Amino acid sequence: MPNRLSASEASRKIAAGELTAETLATSCLERVAEREAAVQAWAFIDPGAVLKQARTLDLQPRRSRLHGIPIGIKDVIDTHDMPTQYGSRIYEGNQPNCDAACVAQIRELGGLILGKSVSTEFATRQPNKTRNPLNPAHTPGGSSSGSAAAVADFMVPIALGTQTSSSIVRPAAYCGVVGYKPSFGLINRAGLKFLSESLDTIGSLTRTIPDAALIVEELSGLTPTSFENVDKLRPRIGLCRSPWWDSADDTSKANLEQAARTLATAGAHVADVTLDDSFATLDEIQIELSSYEFNRALSFERTRHPDLISPHLLGRIAAGGKVTRSRYEQCFAAMKQARLRIADVFRDFDVLISPSAPSEAPGIESTGEPIFGLLWTLLRLPSLTLPFGKGAAGLPLGIQFIAASGKDNALFLHSEWAHRKLQCS
Amino acid sequence: MPNRLSASEASRKIAAGELTAETLATSCLERVAEREAAVQAWAFIDPGAVLKQARTLDLQPRRSRLHGIPIGIKDVIDTHDMPTQYGSRIYEGNQPNCDAACVAQIRELGGLILGKSVSTEFATRQPNKTRNPLNPAHTPGGSSSGSAAAVADFMVPIALGTQTSSSIVRPAAYCGVVGYKPSFGLINRAGLKFLSESLDTIGSLTRTIPDAALIVEELSGLTPTSFENVDKLRPRIGLCRSPWWDSADDTSKANLEQAARTLATAGAHVADVTLDDSFATLDEIQIELSSYEFNRALSFERTRHPDLISPHLLGRIAAGGKVTRSRYEQCFAAMKQARLRIADVFRDFDVLISPSAPSEAPGIESTGEPIFGLLWTLLRLPSLTLPFGKGAAGLPLGIQFIAASGKDNALFLHSEWAHRKLQCS
Repeated sequence: MPNRLSASEASRKIAAGELTAETLATSCLERVAEREAAVQAWAFIDPGAVLKQARTLDLQPRRSRLHGIPIGIKDVIDTHDMPTQYGSRIYEGNQPNCDAACVAQIRELGGLILGKSVSTEFATRQPNKTRNPLNPAHTPGGSSSGSAAAVADFMVPIALGTQTSSSIVRPAAYCGVVGYKPSFGLINRAGLKFLSESLDTIGSLTRTIPDAALIVEELSGLTPTSFENVDKLRPRIGLCRSPWWDSADDTSKANLEQAARTLATAGAHVADVTLDDSFATLDEIQIELSSYEFNRALSFERTRHPDLISPHLLGRIAAGGKVTRSRYEQCFAAMKQARLRIADVFRDFDVLISPSAPSEAPGIESTGEPIFGLLWTLLRLPSLTLPFGKGAAGLPLGIQFIAASGKDNALFLHSEWAHRKLQCS
Repeated sequence: MPNRLSASEASRKIAAGELTAETLATSCLERVAEREAAVQAWAFIDPGAVLKQARTLDLQPRRSRLHGIPIGIKDVIDTHDMPTQYGSRIYEGNQPNCDAACVAQIRELGGLILGKSVSTEFATRQPNKTRNPLNPAHTPGGSSSGSAAAVADFMVPIALGTQTSSSIVRPAAYCGVVGYKPSFGLINRAGLKFLSESLDTIGSLTRTIPDAALIVEELSGLTPTSFENVDKLRPRIGLCRSPWWDSADDTSKANLEQAARTLATAGAHVADVTLDDSFATLDEIQIELSSYEFNRALSFERTRHPDLISPHLLGRIAAGGKVTRSRYEQCFAAMKQARLRIADVFRDFDVLISPSAPSEAPGIESTGEPIFGLLWTLLRLPSLTLPFGKGAAGLPLGIQFIAASGKDNALFLHSEWAHRKLQCS
């Protein structure tokens, strides 16, 4: 079934004339038709328009590796021809007048926008309608809920997500897919609904690491990663339990440690990394800094439509209103200092590994805890979650890989090396 | 005439019950009615709606120092109730569905949005319709053309502008007003049409320095500046001719040096600052870095509506498309390095002074040269232009004051000290 192909595989087949954009899109749309009632991954999808566009692409010369590849767009990213509702009742039926930069770039490259994937309310924590495709009694995680669920359920090979705390990594881990948050600034943010402009990062949900590389390389001009010699690597891996280790459940802890042992056995240099005490308060710094920015960024919504904002988000906004400018500047300075200190850590390691989430996906009453994403987002480092292991309920766990700032290529290579070794274990 | 009051004076009178928002708004609107045909500062203004809002504000308790103060909004900043056209034919009649964060904050604080002031095309360099109110054969400068002209012509005491290169400082200097670009990140950018997200900065055009302080303090929570003891200061001022000194005309050069002598005589410690050679290429770095980002940020416009983009901007966009990711990252690294080096310079100085523009306002066929703004914008430093002196055609010149990152309060105090001394000279 073409919908099961990775984007990289589909791209090769399209280039070779073995697959058409129309066939691939049809297969994805059939999967949506079959599964959407249960998964509810989409805020908007127009199958007729998608097929029409696919047929047009089939008549055109191939423009890039994205040519004919269906891509879901998280519904906090503007599209000129589809409603963009930011997961908020305030914006029901909202129709932007232009595409976000990344959407226009995808179209320019011949990519096929399949639809708008469900976001939680303004990419914060209030659950929306999407269910975990592996078990509908469980959350897909948030805030990139629909993107993670759609990719996991083979509705689309790539979806864009956004992360301010752990909004790509967490849902990817819960749904058993690859979630990748690039180095800050790699994908242009024009046309993204801002929540926290110092942290908001556009990234991807995919089923493979080469697909994560593919989409970011095409959008940013990052040098294409060659995976040819990946098996020859001997990664230096830091096992970073992080200051929040105790919030992980025993299964997740054991799973990460098992992964570390397997990777060491497979040839990696694995050593423990203990972050110094100065890192232990950065979760609160991330929350204060982002809440201050939530409060400002959502000024129109909080002043005009507080009745249409969830109590949870109203609480975050109110807390942000109490963060003074001087406290915010302290938080910002702490972030900058920590970025210098973490750069030292990466002198000895190619990547760190850490939990992606405290546990497997919890029930649908929440989108789970972002705790294991806060630090890496605050530090603006590239990070990627890879499915590995299962929780007690049989849902996937993830291993989070983190690289130094700007070392996105290295992140792909070393996590792909690890993926191959863990798969064989 | 109330329209001639500074925002600070008007605010005090409103607080004291000596002036109403309606009287002030009426006076500003009368000025607009009288002068707009010649100046063409406004992209949109609805006098009836403004007066209605002013009367509503007069019935409400005073919410802040901005209560009842008319404010112009550069037309690259979204408003939910007024068209927002980004100075581009692509967006004729465009009506956003929400206010930019700064607009919603102004309304929350009781400020009165007078209208949308003319921007050049996407805040770049193609001239729009606005004329210099001091001489309609000359440019008001750009890209915050309407904001500078409206404030200079007493249509409004405060207007928001934006700067990516020199788009606040240059038009302010040409029109003889105070233009202030805050430290990067001081005013929230949600709802700003992005051109270059690494550089775009929202700031103000006002007729006084305390008014520049007023608007940014209210929007950002920056500690209010006390000007009470300003005359007791003895500023340490660095006279920074900059690597681009030769692009200034003789009158502008002599004017800056005259200002330095006057300030020294008045009690400032004035010393020459020569930036090392590493700064001399940062103008090109700024252009490459911003062009790369223009190309991405305007992806929708350049792919869908190239026929509605000016040849000048198309050229910038095309040039940006040729900047590779690795070159962009080099530019970014150069920017970061330079920010560290400039911090050293400020160990010895409270502020630097430098030209605001190469000359007085040229003719209407261009918006003038941004050269003297590029470095300070790239370095993300707060800067402010103060009118001082005249060019050969009798149009104003400006002195640009620059402070260390985050030292916006110091910038206000030392430039206000200088303003008072220069005024008496």
